[in-house]
Amino acid sequence: MVKIEQDERIDHLPNEKLKIIQSPDVFSFSMDAVFLAKFCYVPIQKGDIVDLCTGNGVIPLLLSERSKAKITGVEIQERLFHMAVRSTEMNELSEQITFLHGDIKNAPTSLGKGKFDLVTCNPPYFKTVTEKEWNENKHFAIARHEIYCDLDDVLRVSGDLVKERGKVAIVHRPDRLIDIITSMKKYQIEPKRIQFVHPKKEREANILLVEGIKNGKSGIKILQPLFVYHDDNTYTEEFKNIYFS
Amino acid sequence: MVKIEQDERIDHLPNEKLKIIQSPDVFSFSMDAVFLAKFCYVPIQKGDIVDLCTGNGVIPLLLSERSKAKITGVEIQERLFHMAVRSTEMNELSEQITFLHGDIKNAPTSLGKGKFDLVTCNPPYFKTVTEKEWNENKHFAIARHEIYCDLDDVLRVSGDLVKERGKVAIVHRPDRLIDIITSMKKYQIEPKRIQFVHPKKEREANILLVEGIKNGKSGIKILQPLFVYHDDNTYTEEFKNIYFS
Repeated sequence: MVKIEQDERIDHLPNEKLKIIQSPDVFSFSMDAVFLAKFCYVPIQKGDIVDLCTGNGVIPLLLSERSKAKITGVEIQERLFHMAVRSTEMNELSEQITFLHGDIKNAPTSLGKGKFDLVTCNPPYFKTVTEKEWNENKHFAIARHEIYCDLDDVLRVSGDLVKERGKVAIVHRPDRLIDIITSMKKYQIEPKRIQFVHPKKEREANILLVEGIKNGKSGIKILQPLFVYHDDNTYTEEFKNIYFS
Repeated sequence: MVKIEQDERIDHLPNEKLKIIQSPDVFSFSMDAVFLAKFCYVPIQKGDIVDLCTGNGVIPLLLSERSKAKITGVEIQERLFHMAVRSTEMNELSEQITFLHGDIKNAPTSLGKGKFDLVTCNPPYFKTVTEKEWNENKHFAIARHEIYCDLDDVLRVSGDLVKERGKVAIVHRPDRLIDIITSMKKYQIEPKRIQFVHPKKEREANILLVEGIKNGKSGIKILQPLFVYHDDNTYTEEFKNIYFS
């Protein structure tokens, strides 16, 4: 029997097949993580996947529905690490999914360099944190802001962990596209596929999905854009097909 | 009276307000050039614009409908340069639009460094030319392939011509996105706005529009995507609104 803390609740993942422990005071997964878990190419029958900044383990849980590979999640916040471990036990997935509590910057030393088929990451998006944000909720501040790691750290570590021709898939905000491409190139991760998510058809993109290949050859594809809402604020079919599948 | 060569014809630009000399044996403007001329921000009342690889002058002609700035087109092919000059005379726009016959690489010396508010370019897209392509039609080969200038040349020259905080707007193929961003950064042109054009809603992008600002601050917007055709192969309203306006 998995222990649930007082502030926690058990939610379903969007497709309602798996459960996840969340806490409104600590962390809840976002739409962005779900998009990333559906966007990336996965090794299907075997292999090794690592998810950096895994939070409560939402990406490893979702990936387990697409892949039989061993999945390791890395999380620096002890509280979130424990939530991820317990969610995995609750879903009886501890054989496939394990977690490492620690700084992603130590992951190549702990887990080994150049051995992963796929590295995923939904990193903190924002460059700076205000004192108010830090004081109000340190869990949120760390998950959202580049406090313990920044984008360049994420891509350097990803480049170290991934094997030759392995994949690195990241979700981020479109306004960081140039930084992402610059760091990917710096660490020999060639960007190969990009997909933008727009809240509505006539709006700017607000989510960027990008996948690169370690030492891949140049040439990138911009996939069909995704729209979340129709003009009348109902979900689009394409969104429902991805998000709830 | 403007002289028309035997293989030439007089076409209308899509909005039917201006005329342009084209030749199926030499050069005809593409949808891409029209998109670029509508996508870029222009100085409205005064200023200086330069269009590199101008071909038969389609972009200067279209820009003259949006801006009172002086516009200079640069073209290396003498035949196309003459077509551009004659089209401009035919439209009585020779006061506003002038052309320079020569290599874009000499343009900063000929036209002056750091003096343009806007640089536009619809450059040759393809890296290599086959012997067959070269032998069949040298005009097409030069317009389409990186024979006399490559993408990095275009962006180096653009970076030299544009003034501080001036704009550089390029149309290219999406698979060159990474090369474009790399060269823009190299020449201090910060990418600020990107728009992708997809032939249909569920297809990959096939046209990339990008605009940067010389020494602009970082942070990019991905504009709403454009779709050319509905599933039934009729033009979309958004396409018609841009292309025929």
